[in-house]
Amino acid sequence: MIKRLGAEFIGTFWLVLGGCGSAVLAANFGGEGNPLGIGLLGVSLAFGLTVLTGAYALGHISGGHFNPAVSFGLWAGGRFPARDLLPYIVAQVLGGLLAGFILLHIASGTGSFSIDPNAAGAFASNGYGSHSPGGYSVAAGFLTEVVMTAMFLVVILGATHPRAPAGFAPLAIGLALTLIHLISIPVTNTSVNPARSTAVGVFAGATAISQLWLFWLAPIVGGLLGGVIYRWLGED
Amino acid sequence: MIKRLGAEFIGTFWLVLGGCGSAVLAANFGGEGNPLGIGLLGVSLAFGLTVLTGAYALGHISGGHFNPAVSFGLWAGGRFPARDLLPYIVAQVLGGLLAGFILLHIASGTGSFSIDPNAAGAFASNGYGSHSPGGYSVAAGFLTEVVMTAMFLVVILGATHPRAPAGFAPLAIGLALTLIHLISIPVTNTSVNPARSTAVGVFAGATAISQLWLFWLAPIVGGLLGGVIYRWLGED
Amino acid sequence: MIKRLGAEFIGTFWLVLGGCGSAVLAANFGGEGNPLGIGLLGVSLAFGLTVLTGAYALGHISGGHFNPAVSFGLWAGGRFPARDLLPYIVAQVLGGLLAGFILLHIASGTGSFSIDPNAAGAFASNGYGSHSPGGYSVAAGFLTEVVMTAMFLVVILGATHPRAPAGFAPLAIGLALTLIHLISIPVTNTSVNPARSTAVGVFAGATAISQLWLFWLAPIVGGLLGGVIYRWLGED
Amino acid sequence: MIKRLGAEFIGTFWLVLGGCGSAVLAANFGGEGNPLGIGLLGVSLAFGLTVLTGAYALGHISGGHFNPAVSFGLWAGGRFPARDLLPYIVAQVLGGLLAGFILLHIASGTGSFSIDPNAAGAFASNGYGSHSPGGYSVAAGFLTEVVMTAMFLVVILGATHPRAPAGFAPLAIGLALTLIHLISIPVTNTSVNPARSTAVGVFAGATAISQLWLFWLAPIVGGLLGGVIYRWLGED
Repeated sequence: MIKRLGAEFIGTFWLVLGGCGSAVLAANFGGEGNPLGIGLLGVSLAFGLTVLTGAYALGHISGGHFNPAVSFGLWAGGRFPARDLLPYIVAQVLGGLLAGFILLHIASGTGSFSIDPNAAGAFASNGYGSHSPGGYSVAAGFLTEVVMTAMFLVVILGATHPRAPAGFAPLAIGLALTLIHLISIPVTNTSVNPARSTAVGVFAGATAISQLWLFWLAPIVGGLLGGVIYRWLGED
Repeated sequence: MIKRLGAEFIGTFWLVLGGCGSAVLAANFGGEGNPLGIGLLGVSLAFGLTVLTGAYALGHISGGHFNPAVSFGLWAGGRFPARDLLPYIVAQVLGGLLAGFILLHIASGTGSFSIDPNAAGAFASNGYGSHSPGGYSVAAGFLTEVVMTAMFLVVILGATHPRAPAGFAPLAIGLALTLIHLISIPVTNTSVNPARSTAVGVFAGATAISQLWLFWLAPIVGGLLGGVIYRWLGED
Repeated sequence: MIKRLGAEFIGTFWLVLGGCGSAVLAANFGGEGNPLGIGLLGVSLAFGLTVLTGAYALGHISGGHFNPAVSFGLWAGGRFPARDLLPYIVAQVLGGLLAGFILLHIASGTGSFSIDPNAAGAFASNGYGSHSPGGYSVAAGFLTEVVMTAMFLVVILGATHPRAPAGFAPLAIGLALTLIHLISIPVTNTSVNPARSTAVGVFAGATAISQLWLFWLAPIVGGLLGGVIYRWLGED
Repeated sequence: MIKRLGAEFIGTFWLVLGGCGSAVLAANFGGEGNPLGIGLLGVSLAFGLTVLTGAYALGHISGGHFNPAVSFGLWAGGRFPARDLLPYIVAQVLGGLLAGFILLHIASGTGSFSIDPNAAGAFASNGYGSHSPGGYSVAAGFLTEVVMTAMFLVVILGATHPRAPAGFAPLAIGLALTLIHLISIPVTNTSVNPARSTAVGVFAGATAISQLWLFWLAPIVGGLLGGVIYRWLGED
C-alpha cells in the first residue's frame, strides 16, 4: 500500500507541477499577446501529458488516478474499493501541495513574479464569476465541471475495459484531459480535479480558497455520474 | 442494441461538445488576434481527440461511428448492416443535439456571449458562400466535404482492417479528423459529419439551417465513395 | 500489384492534399499575423498526420512509402526490390498531381486566391535562394534536404525493424515527418519528397519548376544515405 | 558495442539537430511576434519527437538514452552497467557536437543570421540569471533542472518496467520531454541533457560555456535522484 500511495503522491505532484507549471511559467512567455508563449493550447497539452506519462510510468503500481474525482468515479464504476478512497485522496492532495510549493519557489526566481489574489486564474487557480478567466457564472462553471468530469470517467472506465485495446488507456486518458482543457479553460481555468485546485488555490489567495468548494463538489459529482453511466453502458 | 445506441449517443455528444465547444469557448479566447486562444489548430486537435478518446472508450460497444456519414460509409464498405443505419443515425443526431443545448447553456454563462446568425461560423456552424469562414463558394465547399469524408472513410476502413496493426485504429481515425480540420476549417468550418452540423446549426439561426442540406448530402456522398474505394483496395 | 500502386496513389494524394492543403488554405487564415491561422506548427502536424493515417490505413497494402525518396531508401536498406521502384514512383507522382489539381480547384473557390510565381513558397512549393521562405542559400537547402531525408529513412528502417515494437512504425514515421517540418520549413519549405515538390511545383510557376531538380536530387541522395547508414547500424 | 555507440551518436545527433534546430530556425519565423513561427510549443514538440522517433528507431540497438543524465539515472535505477557510462557519454557528446556544427552551417545560409553571445538562449543555448530566457536565478534554474530530470527518469524507468504496457515507452518518454520543455523553457531554455547543452553551448559564446557546469551537474543529480526514487517505487 505504501508504494501505491507513493505512486499517487508522485503522479499528482507531476500533474500539478507540469500542468499548473506550464500555465504559470510559459503560457504568457514574452508578455500577453506574444505568440512565443504556449497559450491555452500548450497548457492543455501539458496537463494531458502529465497524465499520459504518469499513467504509463506509475499506472501499473497504483492504477494512476492522481485525482480524487477519478478515485470516486472508479469506486462508482465498481473498479475501486471504498476503503482505499481516503488514503488515495490524502496522498493526491499532499503530492499536489508539494508541487504547488516547488512551483512557487521556481516562479519566484524571476524578479517580475507576483500573485494578484484578485486576478482570475492567479497562480493557475480555478474560479468562477469574477475569477473565471472568461467571466463565466457559477452555474456555468458548475455545469462545465460536472459534465467534463463525467465524460472523463466515461473515457477512463471505457479505455480500461477488458474489451478495449490493451495498453492504450494512458494515451486515451491523457489526451482526454488535454481535450477537456481545450474546451473549458475559459470557463473555470479547468479543474476536474480537486487535488489540483487545492494544490495551487492555497497559494493563490483568499478568493481562490473561498471558491475551492465548487472544485471539490462538482468534479466528485461528475465523477460519480460518469461512473454510474459507464457501469450501465459497459456491462455485457 | 440499446447499449450500442447509448454509446453512439454519448460519443456524438462528446464529439459536438468537445469539437464545437472548443471552437465556441476557446478558439478566440482573449479576443480575436490574441495568441492565448487555441485557434484553428486547437479546434482541429479537439475534434480529433473527441473521436480518439470516444473510440477507445466506446468503440468496443458500438463500433464508434459518432457520425451518419461514417455509418453510411461502413455500410458501403461492407462492414455495417443496412438495418442498423436508421437507429444509429437517430442516436447520433440526438446525442449531438443534447451537446449543442448544453454548450448553449455554458456559453450563455458569460455576459459577452451572443450568436450573430449572419456571421460565418456562428456557434461553430458549417457554411458556404458568405457563411464560409474564408468565403469559399458552394462548389468548393461541396468538393471539399466529399473528398475529406471519402478519405476519412479510407482511413477508417483501412485502419480497422484485420491486416492493420491491432489497437491503433482509434488513434489513426481520431488524428485523421484532426488533419481534416487542419485543412478545411477555412472552407466550410469542416463538417464531414451531418450530426455535428445539425447539432449546432439548429441553434445558429436561419442561414445555418438553410445550408444544412449540403452538410448531409456531401458527407454521405463522400462516405459512400470512400467505402467503395476501400472495398476495392483492401480486398485480397 | 495494381492494388499496391492504387494504395501508393491514394496515400501520396492524401499527403499532398493534407500537407500542402493545410499550408495553402489554413496556415495564414485571417491574414498573416493572425494567430487563428495554424502557422508552421499546424502545417508540420498536418504533413505528419497524412503519413501516420495513410500508413495505418494503407501500409498493409503497399508498405506506405508515398514518397520516391523513401522507395529509393528502402531499396538501399535492402527492404524493397529495384524492379518496383519505377511503378511506385509513377503512382506516387500521379497521386500527388491529382491532389495538386484538386487543391487548386478548392483554393480558387475564394475570390481572394491567386498564385504569385515570384513569392517564396507560392502554392506550398519548395525553393531555395530567393524562393526559400527564410532566404536560405542553395547550399543550405541542399544540405538540409539531404540530412533530413537521411534521418527520415533511419527512422523508417529502424521503426519497421523486426526488433522494434510492432505496430508503432506509422506513428513514429508520421511524427518524424512532423518533426522534419518543424525544423526545416523556413529553409526550403521542406520537401524530403520529390513527388510532393512536383505535385504543387508544376502549378506554382516557372521559378518553382526551375528549382525542382534540387527536390529530386537531394531527397534521393539523402534517402540512399539513410538506407546505407541504417543497413550498417541495424544488422545483427 | 560499436553499433550501440553508433546508435547513441545518431540519436543524440537527431535530438540536437531537431530540438535546437527547430528553436534556431523556426521558433521566431517571420520575426518575433509573428504567429507563423512555431514558438515554445513547437520547440517543445520537436524535442519530444526527436526522442520518440529516435527511440522507436534505435532503442532496440542501444536502449535509446541520447543523454548522459539518462545513462546515469538508468545506472542508479539498476538498469545500466557502470562500465558503459563513459563510452555512451562520449558518443552522445560527439553526436550532439556534429549536430551543432551542421546546424551552424544551415543557419548561416541566410544572410540575417548571427549569434549574439550576450543574448539569453543564443543559438538555443541553456542559461541562468541574465542568460535565462525569462531572467530566472541560478537557484531557480538548478532546482528546475534537478526536478525535471528526476521526473524524466521516473517516467523512463516506469514506462520501461516489465509491468508497463509493452511498446509504449518511446511514446511516453518522448512526450515527457515535450512536457518538460512546455514547463521550463522560460527558466533555463530547458536542458535536462548535458550533451544537448554542450553541443550548442560551445558555439554560443563565452557566457554559455561558462554556465555549462550547471547543465552537467543539475541534470546528473536529477537523474540519479529519479533513478533512486523509482528503484524504491517499482520494486515488488
